[in-house]
Amino acid sequence: MEHADILLTGGTVLTLNGRLDRYAPGAVAIRGDSILAVGSQEAICARYSADTVVDCQGQVVMPGLVNAHTHMPMSLLRAMADDLRLDVWLMGYMMPVEREFVSPEFVRLGTELSCAEMIRGGTTLIADMYYFEAEVAAATAAAGLRGVCGQTVMKYPAPDAESYEESLARTRRFIEEWRGHPLIVPSVAPHAPYTCTDEILRACADLAVEFDVPLQIHILETRQEAEDSWAAFEKKVVNRVVELGVFRAKAIAAHCVHVDSEQIRLLDQYDVAVAHNPTSNLKLASGIAPVAEMLERGVRLSIGTDGAASNNDLDMFEEMRLAALLAKGATFDPVVLPAREALLMATRWGAEALHLGHLTGSLEPGKRADLIVLDHDPVHNIPHFGRDPNAVYSQVVYAGQAADVQHVMVNGRWLMRERALLTLDEARIRREAEEYARRMDAFLIAREGNVLNKLVAIGGLQQEESFEIQVKALVDGDGESLIERLLRDPAVRVVKHNHYRQYDTYFLFDDENQGRVRYREDDFIGASGEMEAVRTRLTYTIPDKAREFDEAVLLSHSRFIAPADRPLRFYREYFQAHRECEVHKDRLRWHVLYKGVLFYVNLDHVMAPKTDRRYIEIKSRTWSARDAEYKAALTSEILDEVLGIQPAARVRMEYVDLC
Amino acid sequence: MEHADILLTGGTVLTLNGRLDRYAPGAVAIRGDSILAVGSQEAICARYSADTVVDCQGQVVMPGLVNAHTHMPMSLLRAMADDLRLDVWLMGYMMPVEREFVSPEFVRLGTELSCAEMIRGGTTLIADMYYFEAEVAAATAAAGLRGVCGQTVMKYPAPDAESYEESLARTRRFIEEWRGHPLIVPSVAPHAPYTCTDEILRACADLAVEFDVPLQIHILETRQEAEDSWAAFEKKVVNRVVELGVFRAKAIAAHCVHVDSEQIRLLDQYDVAVAHNPTSNLKLASGIAPVAEMLERGVRLSIGTDGAASNNDLDMFEEMRLAALLAKGATFDPVVLPAREALLMATRWGAEALHLGHLTGSLEPGKRADLIVLDHDPVHNIPHFGRDPNAVYSQVVYAGQAADVQHVMVNGRWLMRERALLTLDEARIRREAEEYARRMDAFLIAREGNVLNKLVAIGGLQQEESFEIQVKALVDGDGESLIERLLRDPAVRVVKHNHYRQYDTYFLFDDENQGRVRYREDDFIGASGEMEAVRTRLTYTIPDKAREFDEAVLLSHSRFIAPADRPLRFYREYFQAHRECEVHKDRLRWHVLYKGVLFYVNLDHVMAPKTDRRYIEIKSRTWSARDAEYKAALTSEILDEVLGIQPAARVRMEYVDLC
Repeated sequence: MEHADILLTGGTVLTLNGRLDRYAPGAVAIRGDSILAVGSQEAICARYSADTVVDCQGQVVMPGLVNAHTHMPMSLLRAMADDLRLDVWLMGYMMPVEREFVSPEFVRLGTELSCAEMIRGGTTLIADMYYFEAEVAAATAAAGLRGVCGQTVMKYPAPDAESYEESLARTRRFIEEWRGHPLIVPSVAPHAPYTCTDEILRACADLAVEFDVPLQIHILETRQEAEDSWAAFEKKVVNRVVELGVFRAKAIAAHCVHVDSEQIRLLDQYDVAVAHNPTSNLKLASGIAPVAEMLERGVRLSIGTDGAASNNDLDMFEEMRLAALLAKGATFDPVVLPAREALLMATRWGAEALHLGHLTGSLEPGKRADLIVLDHDPVHNIPHFGRDPNAVYSQVVYAGQAADVQHVMVNGRWLMRERALLTLDEARIRREAEEYARRMDAFLIAREGNVLNKLVAIGGLQQEESFEIQVKALVDGDGESLIERLLRDPAVRVVKHNHYRQYDTYFLFDDENQGRVRYREDDFIGASGEMEAVRTRLTYTIPDKAREFDEAVLLSHSRFIAPADRPLRFYREYFQAHRECEVHKDRLRWHVLYKGVLFYVNLDHVMAPKTDRRYIEIKSRTWSARDAEYKAALTSEILDEVLGIQPAARVRMEYVDLC
Repeated sequence: MEHADILLTGGTVLTLNGRLDRYAPGAVAIRGDSILAVGSQEAICARYSADTVVDCQGQVVMPGLVNAHTHMPMSLLRAMADDLRLDVWLMGYMMPVEREFVSPEFVRLGTELSCAEMIRGGTTLIADMYYFEAEVAAATAAAGLRGVCGQTVMKYPAPDAESYEESLARTRRFIEEWRGHPLIVPSVAPHAPYTCTDEILRACADLAVEFDVPLQIHILETRQEAEDSWAAFEKKVVNRVVELGVFRAKAIAAHCVHVDSEQIRLLDQYDVAVAHNPTSNLKLASGIAPVAEMLERGVRLSIGTDGAASNNDLDMFEEMRLAALLAKGATFDPVVLPAREALLMATRWGAEALHLGHLTGSLEPGKRADLIVLDHDPVHNIPHFGRDPNAVYSQVVYAGQAADVQHVMVNGRWLMRERALLTLDEARIRREAEEYARRMDAFLIAREGNVLNKLVAIGGLQQEESFEIQVKALVDGDGESLIERLLRDPAVRVVKHNHYRQYDTYFLFDDENQGRVRYREDDFIGASGEMEAVRTRLTYTIPDKAREFDEAVLLSHSRFIAPADRPLRFYREYFQAHRECEVHKDRLRWHVLYKGVLFYVNLDHVMAPKTDRRYIEIKSRTWSARDAEYKAALTSEILDEVLGIQPAARVRMEYVDLC
């Protein structure tokens, strides 16, 4: 007799291996972190003895489930805000609350909460994307789960980084620190093509290739993303990502709801794994991913819950069932994605999608002992038909429940026995999670009626580049000589020239933390001096995020713009500002390239308030902190060297200060 | 202090009443079968004392869930056959197994199994449609659940009736017997417009109106039904049903997946309640019902699981979650069917849809005490946000699970406490259900490769009228004088005349229970004697269902036809018959009305086998047993009185017997 540490006997064993071997009654022998043998009870018990024998009669023994896309810490935001428009949900709730609350402690607690839920629901391998991902990794490893942990990188300031350069540096440290861990695979997670610049996407791919770690990214979750990509780049999203070399990395693309046939072929060609998120895609009304077509094409497919804020739970039984159901309903074909394949997507195919197929995802000798034992005869899952070998998969997928899971093992270690968690303190997690919820409730109540909230509610809001570089100087005379110097300079090339009249109304609040809103009417003036077009828009600025970087150069964070498609009177009543301020000016604007970098040069004649002053402004914007400093230096150079303006002429005011 | 029997205190009480009152902590006072009072814990405890006080801290107290459409006995068929084409699933598995196994015992056991599952999942009111519905009612009442029980009526022979007249008679007895029961509302259930003749639909509506009981019917589950209705009646399904007066009854229409805007308006106008079955509609690939449009129109909406054979469980938490998710995904609008409304559909609106809104569906004084208590803080449903009054509905709908239900009460009686069932013996149910599954397995294994199965698998099969009336006589000479007599008779009117050559190949099997298949090529011969068109089709007859009714008149059950769109050689290889038989004949056919009833008169000249005999045949078909006997009598009359054929000339053979 050979020695094993643990023998599981008497259950129906579903290996989910390449031949879909099943044994009833079957047995599994485990030694250390790995599976020694799987087979019929008779064969295994004849060959192995073990100190611990677990009787699994009336139960199914199978590989643990793979949640291929989630954001674990977001379980702390579960049911905070539901059934809302996507922009309201995201910009009105998720982002402000994340900005305020996401910290290493928040991330660790949320991960613990999610791990507790997922162990209870039979998940043993998780792919996560969030901020402070080292905390996610630490909490996941402590809970004993296997995880592919992706540090998020994007162009916006994030809770764990002021700029994407910081995120990239954080990611590199994270990967170096966690490489080679027995449970955790560190990973880089550029958030999405629309939240990343080309440079960010390239840098992330480089990092993933350098360390040979997976790259996780959201792709085409919404129809809007497809439209915006076409408008901005004249490229389909997947085509753009391919061109940027992102798929040189071992890529896992979440969602892929709006991929067309061409993009599906590209995903297949570049061996990109897709994480399908059926519940979240329905709940946020994103749509239904073309799973049947992707399967037919041979794309690697897996299933994820997405975060609990858009699901609202992390129940892989629900998720694989919905994947199977939805594929049929969407194609009007009831044989598409049978239960067997849905279960494969949630086990072996899932592990393969996360590039861990060699370690886990099926019950095979030599693989890690990542497995679950579930009750096979609750009243919601009897009787049992033996004739059809697919019946047992039907039972697990169509009628199985998270609560049927009795035992969970990862890497040979029990994480749950008889539904009792062995690695997590549920009472503490519950207490601390409720305390966070109370604080978030209070934060949200305090900002009910707040300006950003109101802006979000009327729709169309977009966040602008994080960094705005701006320098301003008072002009003597009409400024024509300055402009002549500018246009004459060999280092300057004019790209475009416009003439506007701008009528700005500022809405100001006593509480400066509320920020301020500007309603602007831009009248475009043609060469003949006639008005040719009008544009109105709102700009919202949170002033406490502004700071000075270099002399008279402002870097301002958190600026939002939205089209103003309602009359000024509407906004006046809607925002209920404490004060208003009107600024009218005539603006001549040149878009110039200086040393190859784009700047806006404005020659502004202020007409109201009546000052009869003229100002020259030089502006630029960027998502990159490093780039902002470089541009700030160039801005000073233009002012000093090109225009020859004395430092004394610089002013630090904004036009709103004229009121 | 006033006396109550039971006080539930300390939980979050969701009344789901018209104002959506919530109390946290709240309390409910119960006396006898009814709710005495609902309110804040403070108010209720100050006013009522009770022998039994149940502490519901950390729990939600709410109305029980309403499953507005199911077939309870079908839980015995759970996972027997999944992921198949609809016709294969229905005609290859469901119908043959039901024909063989459905008995009063089967129905009672299946109902008990379903009741056990539904009590565990928090359902307190069920609308059921099946055969032997008195058994369903008895088992439901014994389990202590509230039920609207619908006896099925349709044109096909059913497990509990050879003809629809029998079903109607059974339904009348059932209603008379169960009217006025405290838990059960008997109901008539014409299966669907496509499985019922106009006469059946009218008779069912009459019965429902006569006894003022609800009428349950499947409407437009599939796109096929819409197309077939148009082809057969040049009417949309709902329009036809309206014209037949079905909606004079208190109607509950299940599915309504393919109703268009006109039909939705009709459903609203006739105050028809719709039972939405999202899981089943996806699993059978029927489609997604236009719930958002129906809601907007004001149609009464409820949610059902459908039977466990197409779901595969009876979990109303899954069902209301999917209803909420799917409505958003299908409309690309995330605010459609918020959690609050999905929960209303599954509680008060559901009860109102079943015409029991005065008794149940919400927690209000005077209503019956039908309620559930569920855990509010499992790890999959924390933390809790208090700011948004909708958050608690989100938690129940988006992250609640059947397994969260702790206690269930119906009509003031506990059916489950601490997840222990109090009215059903789960061990016995489990044992007996597994025994049935073994027998069904054996039946299905025995008929693997059986002829009907094979026919079903190639698709297009349709069941013909249950009753075929047929009489045949040998003809002297060429039969022209007989036809002259026929055409001359004042009681006979010719509707249509055809000339064919028919080439029949019979596939015959040693085991007569296999039935026989006929492959027929019909060559249509024009007036010029030229062949104008060809039609090929298969006919399958199960002979053991044939019987003689009157002298030489056959009534044959279970005849199926299908278009034969593949060559004869294919069918020869596919069916692997033990013998074949060829019959060729020249057929002159008249469609005649005799006393207003349609008959087919065939004058057949048999050319192979070479007999040179001529036969005259008179045929008719019907779904009605009574009608069959009437037509059999008329058939004899035509033979004897119109054609003057001597009884001795009648022959009982079929053409296949010539081989």
